[in-house]
Amino acid sequence: MNGAECLLRTLLTNQVDLCLMNPGTSEMQFVAALDRVPRMRGVLGLFEGVCSGAADGYARMTGKPAANLLHLGPGLANALANLHNARKARSPVVNIVGEHSTQHLRYDAPLTADTAAFARPVSGWVRTVEHAAAMGEAASAAVAAALGPPGIVASLIVPADFSWSEAGDPGCPAPRFSPSLPAAERVRDAAAALRSGNAGLLLSGSALDVRGLRAAERVRGACGVRVFADRYAARMARGGDIPAVERIPYFPEPAQELLAGFERLVLVEARPPVSFFGYPGLRSSLAPDGCAFDVLASEDQDGAGALECLADELGAGPLGIALPFPPRPNLPTGEPLSAATVGSAVGALLPEGAIVSDEAVSSSEPIWPSLAGARRHDHLPVTGGAIGQGLPVAMGAALACPGRKVVALEADGSAMYTLQSLWTMARERLDVTVVILANRRYRILDIEMRRTGAGAVGPRADEMIDLTHPEPDWIKLAEGFGVQAARAATADEFIREFAAAMREPGPRLIEAVLDPA
Amino acid sequence: MNGAECLLRTLLTNQVDLCLMNPGTSEMQFVAALDRVPRMRGVLGLFEGVCSGAADGYARMTGKPAANLLHLGPGLANALANLHNARKARSPVVNIVGEHSTQHLRYDAPLTADTAAFARPVSGWVRTVEHAAAMGEAASAAVAAALGPPGIVASLIVPADFSWSEAGDPGCPAPRFSPSLPAAERVRDAAAALRSGNAGLLLSGSALDVRGLRAAERVRGACGVRVFADRYAARMARGGDIPAVERIPYFPEPAQELLAGFERLVLVEARPPVSFFGYPGLRSSLAPDGCAFDVLASEDQDGAGALECLADELGAGPLGIALPFPPRPNLPTGEPLSAATVGSAVGALLPEGAIVSDEAVSSSEPIWPSLAGARRHDHLPVTGGAIGQGLPVAMGAALACPGRKVVALEADGSAMYTLQSLWTMARERLDVTVVILANRRYRILDIEMRRTGAGAVGPRADEMIDLTHPEPDWIKLAEGFGVQAARAATADEFIREFAAAMREPGPRLIEAVLDPA
Repeated sequence: MNGAECLLRTLLTNQVDLCLMNPGTSEMQFVAALDRVPRMRGVLGLFEGVCSGAADGYARMTGKPAANLLHLGPGLANALANLHNARKARSPVVNIVGEHSTQHLRYDAPLTADTAAFARPVSGWVRTVEHAAAMGEAASAAVAAALGPPGIVASLIVPADFSWSEAGDPGCPAPRFSPSLPAAERVRDAAAALRSGNAGLLLSGSALDVRGLRAAERVRGACGVRVFADRYAARMARGGDIPAVERIPYFPEPAQELLAGFERLVLVEARPPVSFFGYPGLRSSLAPDGCAFDVLASEDQDGAGALECLADELGAGPLGIALPFPPRPNLPTGEPLSAATVGSAVGALLPEGAIVSDEAVSSSEPIWPSLAGARRHDHLPVTGGAIGQGLPVAMGAALACPGRKVVALEADGSAMYTLQSLWTMARERLDVTVVILANRRYRILDIEMRRTGAGAVGPRADEMIDLTHPEPDWIKLAEGFGVQAARAATADEFIREFAAAMREPGPRLIEAVLDPA
Repeated sequence: MNGAECLLRTLLTNQVDLCLMNPGTSEMQFVAALDRVPRMRGVLGLFEGVCSGAADGYARMTGKPAANLLHLGPGLANALANLHNARKARSPVVNIVGEHSTQHLRYDAPLTADTAAFARPVSGWVRTVEHAAAMGEAASAAVAAALGPPGIVASLIVPADFSWSEAGDPGCPAPRFSPSLPAAERVRDAAAALRSGNAGLLLSGSALDVRGLRAAERVRGACGVRVFADRYAARMARGGDIPAVERIPYFPEPAQELLAGFERLVLVEARPPVSFFGYPGLRSSLAPDGCAFDVLASEDQDGAGALECLADELGAGPLGIALPFPPRPNLPTGEPLSAATVGSAVGALLPEGAIVSDEAVSSSEPIWPSLAGARRHDHLPVTGGAIGQGLPVAMGAALACPGRKVVALEADGSAMYTLQSLWTMARERLDVTVVILANRRYRILDIEMRRTGAGAVGPRADEMIDLTHPEPDWIKLAEGFGVQAARAATADEFIREFAAAMREPGPRLIEAVLDPA
C-alpha cells in the first residue's frame, strides 16, 4: 500500500479514527485513501482553525487524539491559534502536515515555507518523515507522543512523494502509558499540609472530572480545606450531584482576595495560579507572597486517583449524599435579556449530560453561577486564550459524543474568528446549539482599556472596539452556512428558542441580543 | 509620551499612516493613542488574516508598508498565512505584535507563547523591543527593514509595559534606499544573450509595471525576444495600451512546452521558473534542462529601469503606437454562465484604472485571456499560494487607492478562509466588487487528484472536495456582514449585476453560480 494508506491504517491501529481535514494537492493521496480505509472518518473544515479546534474539543471529551490533515506550512499556520489552545489544554492532537515532494522542496515554489518552524511553537513533538518505509512507524510514534501523558500536540510532516510511494505494512500499535499515581510520600506531605491549616487545594486536569471532584469533596469533608478550580483547565464536570468547587476569578484583584491568607496551596495537576494578563502595578501571581506550593500530582499524573489516595490518607469517610447542591435556577420570565438571564435560562433548561463550550468572554462571568445549579454537564472553557476556540471545540465535542447535547456559549466578537465551523456542524448534523451573546462590542476591551491605564475610550479608539456599523447579522451568517437560526431580544424569547433547541437535535444558532442597559 | 504613542508617531514620521488592527488587552495603549495621533488611520479587522492580507494588498499598490497591530503570539499566528503570501510578494509589511509585560512573561499565563518563533518563518526581520526608550528607534528600524529593497515582513514585538511607560520622543525617519540599476556589464551581457537567439525574457516585480512593460516591448521590438511574466509576481499592469506579455502557465506541462527550446532566460527581478507543485515523474523546473539564466536585475534591483537600460543598449527605438492590442471582449449575452463568460463580461465592463485581485483558482485560467483586452488595470494574483489572500488583498488595495474600482475574483472555496474581510469592506465603504465563482467544489483538487496519481475520486474522497450539502449561501453571508449582494445564474444576469456594480460605489458581492455543464 502507498504511504497515505499506510499512515491512515496505522492511525486506526492506534485507535485514531477521526481525521479533520482541509486538504490540498500534497494531501490528495490521503483523501483518496479514505475510500480504501472506510473506518477512518474524514470530516471537512472550510478553514484549518476549525479542524484544529475541533481536534482539541474531541480530545477533551475522549482523551484520545483526532488527526488534523493540513496543507503545507501555510495550512498549518491557519491551525496554529487553536493548536496553541490545545497545547494549553494538554489535549492530545496529531497533525498530519503535507509537504512538497522531496525533489520539489529545493525549488522554493510559492507554497514552500519552513513547515517545521511553523509547527514547533505549538508542538511538543515534530518529525518529518524520512522515507516512505518509515510512514507506519512514524505515525505510531506521533500518536504515542500525542498521548503522553501529558497530552501534547504532535506534528508529523509528510512529503508528498512518501504518500504516493509504496510504504509497506502499517505500523504497530504504540505502547500506551497510564498516568501514574504520586508516591506515597507526596500524599503524606499533602495531607500534612492540609492538616496544618491555612492550606487550599487547587485542581486541574483529571482532578476536575467526576471522580476527582468526589474525592476532593471527601478531602474537604475530612479536613475542611477550601477547594479551588483552575479556570483554564480543559474540562470540568459540574451540576447535578457533582460537588461544586470555586473557580479562581479572571481578574487578579478578586483572585488575590480569594487566595489571601493561604500559606500553602496543594496542587493537583495544576500550576501555581497566575493572572491572565499583567497590569501596571499589580502582581501576576495570584497566591499571596510567600505562599508555598505542594505538588500532590503533576500534570502528567493521575490527579483524580491522587485525590482518592489523599482522602484515604486523611481517613475521609465515603462521600455524603446530603451536600447542599446549588438550586436549579428559575426561568427568568419577563426579564430583559442579559448575560445573567441567559445564564439562568441555560442553567434551568440544560439537559442531563450536556457539554458546554464557553467562549462568552465578558458574558461568561455572569453566566457561570447559574450553571452550578444545572443538571450534570461538562464545561469546556477557554484554555490558551487564543480567540476562536469555542465553536470548533463544540464541534469536536459533538463529534466525540453523538448522544449528548452540546451548547456553545459564544461572544459575538469571538465567534467571528472561526465562524466557518457552522458549515461543518450543518454538514455533519451535529447536535450543537450555538448561543451568540451579542453585545455588539469587544466588551472585555472596555474593561481592559481602563485596567491597562489607557484611560477612557475616545471616539477613535471606540471604533476599534465597536462592532456596529455594520451590525453583523448572525441569523444570515448562520443560514448562509446552512444552520437554522433565530434571534431573541427578551428573556422570554430566549427561553422559547433555547427550550426548543434543547428538545430538537441541532445544529441551531440563537442570537441573544443583550439589552444594553 | 508613552511608548504606544511614540511608536505610532514614529510610524507617521516614516510615512506609515495606516494601521490594520485586531487588538487585545496588551495593545490597548495603541488603540487609546489613536485619539491623540489623528493622522494614523486605524482599520479594524474581525480576524487577523484579514489585516495581514490587506497590508499585502496595500503594499502592492503603494509600495509602502501598512502596520498590522496583532495580539500576542496567537494573534500573530492567525495572520501568518497571509504574511507568507506577503513574503512571497516581496511586500513591505510592519507587524506590531503586542506581548505580555516583561514582568508577566515569566509566569507562563494562558496566552504566553514563543512570539518570535511564530514570527520568524514569515519575517525577514524580527525584534523584541528591549526597553521603552527604544520604541522610537525600533519602530524606525522596522519600517526601514520592511522597505528593503526588496520588501520584507518586519515584525516588532512590543511588551505591554513599554507601551504604557514613558518613552521619550518619536524616532527619526529611517533612511530609504531606492533599488539600484544593474551594472553596465550585466546589461551588456543580457543584450548579448538576447542577440544570441534562443533566449527569452522573464519579468517579475517592477518589470511588470507600465514602465517595465513598455521598456520590455522596446526590447522585443529591437531583437524579437519573447517576453514572459512570472505568474506569481505581486502585481502586473495590463489591458488598454499596455504591451501584453505571456504569463507562464500553472501546470508544468504547458509551461515546459512554452519554454521548450530556450537555451537562455534573462531574468528581471525573477527567479528561474518552477512548478507550483511537484508531481510523480515530472520535472519541477519549467525551463529546459541545461537552460542558462542571466540575471539582468535581481529581486532587490530596479527591473523596470534595467529594462530601459537594456532597450537602450540594444539600440531600440521609442515605443511604437501601432501594437496589435488584444480586442475588448464582447459581452457574452445569451450564454450560460461559466468562468469564461464571467471573464468576457468582466473584460468588457472593467473600468479604466481598475484593480483586479485574482484568487479564482480553477476559474482563473479561463478568465485570464479576456482581461488582456480590458481597459488598463492592475492585476494582483496569488503569490504564495496560501488560500485566503484574495479578499483581504482587495480590501487593502481599496484602502490604498480610494479613487479606483477594485474587483475581487474569488473561488467559493478560497473566499471562505477570510470571509470576515466583507465586514471591513462594509464598514469602511470600500469600493470593492466581489465576484464569487461558485462551482460548489474545490474544483482544482479534482484535477490535482488525478495529477498526483491518486486516481479517480471515490465517494468518500468526494465528500472532502464537494461544497454542497449544505451549499453555502453567499448572499446571506455577504448580507450578514453588511455587504449588498446578488446572485447571477446566467451570463445576462451576471452582466446586469456586474455592470451595476461598476457604475455604483461598493462594496457589493455577486455570487456567480457557474453552469455545471
